[in-house]
Amino acid sequence: MSAFIKLTLQEVHSLSIKVLSHAGFGQAHAQAIAKMLYTCQLDDCQSHGLFRLFMCIETIKAGAIDPHILPTVNATDASIIHADAQGGMSLLAIDSAMPKLIEKTRKHGIAALVVNRCFHFSALWPEVERLSKAGLVAMAMVPSHAWVAPAGGIRGSLGTNPLAFSWPRLGQDPFTFDFATSGFARGEIELYKRAGKPLPEGVAIDKHGQPTTDAQAALDGAMLTFGGYKGSALSIMIELLAGPLIDDMTSLESMAFAAGTGGAPYHGEIILAFDPNLFSGGKVVDNDQRAERLFADIVDQGARLPSQRRYAARARNLERGYVEIPQQLHEDILKLTVS
Amino acid sequence: MSAFIKLTLQEVHSLSIKVLSHAGFGQAHAQAIAKMLYTCQLDDCQSHGLFRLFMCIETIKAGAIDPHILPTVNATDASIIHADAQGGMSLLAIDSAMPKLIEKTRKHGIAALVVNRCFHFSALWPEVERLSKAGLVAMAMVPSHAWVAPAGGIRGSLGTNPLAFSWPRLGQDPFTFDFATSGFARGEIELYKRAGKPLPEGVAIDKHGQPTTDAQAALDGAMLTFGGYKGSALSIMIELLAGPLIDDMTSLESMAFAAGTGGAPYHGEIILAFDPNLFSGGKVVDNDQRAERLFADIVDQGARLPSQRRYAARARNLERGYVEIPQQLHEDILKLTVS
Repeated sequence: MSAFIKLTLQEVHSLSIKVLSHAGFGQAHAQAIAKMLYTCQLDDCQSHGLFRLFMCIETIKAGAIDPHILPTVNATDASIIHADAQGGMSLLAIDSAMPKLIEKTRKHGIAALVVNRCFHFSALWPEVERLSKAGLVAMAMVPSHAWVAPAGGIRGSLGTNPLAFSWPRLGQDPFTFDFATSGFARGEIELYKRAGKPLPEGVAIDKHGQPTTDAQAALDGAMLTFGGYKGSALSIMIELLAGPLIDDMTSLESMAFAAGTGGAPYHGEIILAFDPNLFSGGKVVDNDQRAERLFADIVDQGARLPSQRRYAARARNLERGYVEIPQQLHEDILKLTVS
Repeated sequence: MSAFIKLTLQEVHSLSIKVLSHAGFGQAHAQAIAKMLYTCQLDDCQSHGLFRLFMCIETIKAGAIDPHILPTVNATDASIIHADAQGGMSLLAIDSAMPKLIEKTRKHGIAALVVNRCFHFSALWPEVERLSKAGLVAMAMVPSHAWVAPAGGIRGSLGTNPLAFSWPRLGQDPFTFDFATSGFARGEIELYKRAGKPLPEGVAIDKHGQPTTDAQAALDGAMLTFGGYKGSALSIMIELLAGPLIDDMTSLESMAFAAGTGGAPYHGEIILAFDPNLFSGGKVVDNDQRAERLFADIVDQGARLPSQRRYAARARNLERGYVEIPQQLHEDILKLTVS
């Protein structure tokens, strides 16, 4: 068990800015990335918090990213916003397009944000949760690299292809989930590898297509989707919606494009937003209560709603003003500021 | 193993019309329902073909449906079409709204069809497949009755909550799937019960919250979702999108409304449609090829794409001009025309 150290919330942010600026990211990108890392670390999401600084730095080192390029945002009369990251990180493009997505959704009832040509390393729940804070329902999907075998297959064709969803709850934190359609998130496997722990059964195959619990063998082979052929079908859906639909790469193409250089995958992202007011004919309060009765029935029988642990961590960390991260992680990050 | 008999394609349709008319459905509804049963039976979907005539008849007998009422369709300037079935079966409402959904999607890039106040018994793949035949990508979702326990729960809160998706493939049948987010479809469990076969492990709990493989005990208790907490989260998403978002019932409310009277559940439905042309900036052909490379990579490693068995059955049955159904089923259906 590794030791943990305390970082104030201010330190989480300033450490990220320092590392990202030192690595060469322009100020606008460094701010957008640091905000995302802060948001995840605040909720104790260790796999998508400061730990992701390594991937950001590896992405710079891989040499394909433009760390200064500014995104363009193009909203037509249609219900689609096109944000072109132009070979930069995804987050600044999303930040730039978010107000237009909210405006378009309130006007048309449903709208989509398409993000193209971006490097992507982040969790999706902050984006859908942000839309729910504006009163909207939201879904987000991305491909990644072809690390995941389809049901019945023996090698990677699919990405970890996360699906995030958020539902606004009046007067409280939204109902939000964000899960990889692989049995495990890639970032989790990397944490298992760092910790030297075996994976659970049934989440990965080795490079020969055989089941494995070894994290490195899984990284060299392929992961499996969750939920058998249904999870596999869902993963293929995400490939199609966040790839060919939006004129951007599949996980297979993204992996071929990267050619083993490491860093964040390069591909697109799709975010859908729904306005409960226009969908329900103005009956938002009635239907909020309807949803709350469902949530209550789930919780009353001892089941948990997703994100509750995350919200509890957020409340605690905000109150005490600091987060805890593994000491080794902190030491490794500090090296990034001088190398 | 029960014997099968042959029914010509014409007989599949005329037998449905005869049963539905005899039961009291108006001509427009009988035609819409018969078309759906034919579509499913043609593809050898035994659980959603002629077998569903029993549920249609039980729905009439339960007394809550209006078998003659015509739906209304209301398209605003927004990207949402509202179809109100007004207490009738869903299918006529969907048929009536489909052209407007296609038109709206081609105009705005993304659009939604909301169907309210409908009795619903049918598979979703015919609806999304129809949209793909018009060149669109489509998703469809419905709640049902609260037969399914959430992950970590001990009783039903969620419906079987199917998710259907379809992607148009240039020059060939679409990539289409339609799966229940329960481990098993309710209709499949009923077929197990009729056949006296035990269920697989891990798909159901009894009324005391304990695992069971007995079909009747599962019908009296609750099913489980596929894929653990991820499948459970997906099922809750479908409850919210096809219920409170569209001002219609959750599976809990639908079950309470039915109050054990049997027949098809009464609730809403949501269908989303995406225009690949507007999403991809006109690059439909390039991105069709991109999707085909993904499909080829999946098939080349020995995995299967969903719906291929169904398309093969369709081609075979269309060529030979008949389908095969269990003899016992046929005898039971014939009784419906005289009772």
